Amino acid sequence: MSQNVAVIGLGSMGLGMARTLLAKGWQVSGCDLSAEARDRLRAHGGEAHDSPGAAAAGRSLVVSVVVNAAQTRDVLFGHDGVAASMAAGGLFVSCATMSPDDARSIADRVEALGLHYLDAPISGGAAKAATGDLTVMASGSAQAFEAAAGLLDAVSARVFRLGDAPGAGSAVKMINQLLAGVHIAAAGEAMVMAARLGLDLPAVYEVITASAGNSWMFENRVPHVLDGDYRPLSSVEIFVKDLGIIGDMARDLRYPAPIAAAALQMYLAAAGAGLGKQDDSAVAKVYASLSGVTLPQGRG
Amino acid sequence: MSQNVAVIGLGSMGLGMARTLLAKGWQVSGCDLSAEARDRLRAHGGEAHDSPGAAAAGRSLVVSVVVNAAQTRDVLFGHDGVAASMAAGGLFVSCATMSPDDARSIADRVEALGLHYLDAPISGGAAKAATGDLTVMASGSAQAFEAAAGLLDAVSARVFRLGDAPGAGSAVKMINQLLAGVHIAAAGEAMVMAARLGLDLPAVYEVITASAGNSWMFENRVPHVLDGDYRPLSSVEIFVKDLGIIGDMARDLRYPAPIAAAALQMYLAAAGAGLGKQDDSAVAKVYASLSGVTLPQGRG
Repeated sequence: MSQNVAVIGLGSMGLGMARTLLAKGWQVSGCDLSAEARDRLRAHGGEAHDSPGAAAAGRSLVVSVVVNAAQTRDVLFGHDGVAASMAAGGLFVSCATMSPDDARSIADRVEALGLHYLDAPISGGAAKAATGDLTVMASGSAQAFEAAAGLLDAVSARVFRLGDAPGAGSAVKMINQLLAGVHIAAAGEAMVMAARLGLDLPAVYEVITASAGNSWMFENRVPHVLDGDYRPLSSVEIFVKDLGIIGDMARDLRYPAPIAAAALQMYLAAAGAGLGKQDDSAVAKVYASLSGVTLPQGRG
Repeated sequence: MSQNVAVIGLGSMGLGMARTLLAKGWQVSGCDLSAEARDRLRAHGGEAHDSPGAAAAGRSLVVSVVVNAAQTRDVLFGHDGVAASMAAGGLFVSCATMSPDDARSIADRVEALGLHYLDAPISGGAAKAATGDLTVMASGSAQAFEAAAGLLDAVSARVFRLGDAPGAGSAVKMINQLLAGVHIAAAGEAMVMAARLGLDLPAVYEVITASAGNSWMFENRVPHVLDGDYRPLSSVEIFVKDLGIIGDMARDLRYPAPIAAAALQMYLAAAGAGLGKQDDSAVAKVYASLSGVTLPQGRG
């Protein structure tokens, strides 16, 4: 018995999820503004549309894999949006990273239409999207979790069930992004300082990854710096956005977050220097340019 | 055939190393200003002195496990110091965390006396000192490494050989401390923000340790916050010192390190608030006191 889903947003995460679902026998109807992305979905056996409303028409399960709250609102309520076209009583699963306030306000509007909403940010990157091994940080009603069960099972290795109301999933994702963003920038700060001290960078990487200074991001991103390979897996602009949301949330809460704020300045400096579309590890280039350090040269 | 070593400084790291060496059949002569520490060494079968010179007298192998460069200079060249009492041509192994410039200047002075010097900061904490599983970040001459081989083999699980001159070991240790200090403070910033958002802290810990926001320090220190247990394994004052050294080094190098600088301010705030002798995870209490958050209460 085949299952049906509409996947809105066919970037590296959305296309990876769509491919995983197709491989597992689901019928997938996708939407992206890019014709190239639509062609890729078709090549893998999916049905592709250029409007969210068309992709979701009559479907009772829609997963949105766009970048932020504004895009999510547009997918739902913009021109030819999903909210007006999907089946009555259906479930909208939102994977975009956004503030918990945005998640709650979007959920309220969706639920007022008689639809269900699952606040379900994802973690794991394009590689894990493609293999169905994502981590999902989810919150929502029992009905939303029930309707999402088959989808979550297909695309993720682990689902954290964080509460019965939208907002908690997004809040935990933002806490993760605070740490991830700080750790990548700190990795750049530390490795370029090591270079400035004349140390052998691969040796420093070997020591740190075996020591208490290690982080998931240090281990994952520093090889990009050592290889001089800044082709984007996740871009500098993603952390301009995510640490920007953290900054907005912290200001609203009257919560001081000086380390996240310092890290945001470094991503802003990277973006301002024209590196916004490069891999987030390119934040190291800002430190290098401010200290006369030459980093390993590679691809871009 | 028994081997001989003098261990200067019998805090948690030095005493752990001394106990490991005694258990492996070494003859250990130790020194500490604290009578209690000396008694502990005697209880484990070591010989204890209240001056470095007496502990090192005639020994050709001395390991110094004190806190910083000033104490290391004092151990060597202060009243009744080691440099004047140890055997000619012997090896001084320095484990204190210090700037590479300090390591080089102390090594120069030691080597000018015809002694050998190994720049050998350690990582792993009291637990790994006690079991002989330390990580050593070492640099020095071939003769220094040769003379240290038995000692390093006895006390450590892993020795990184980082170059043939003192300074590189200390430099890599400082890079590790930059990251470790930032990661602990960032863990506090993130977890107290999670509390401010009303999230369930054990659930957040579970998600983050399974996600890209994880760090060695997050995983190790956040349980102290969840348990409200701030008995010091490593104190706030250690990072006031170590991030202070980073700040001094960065200023001398004309190297901007804004994230380490922001983290240092939080440790200074913690120490200024009277938390200097508590576990370094108590930096979270500063965030809590500035945001009206009540953290879990436990032991102190």
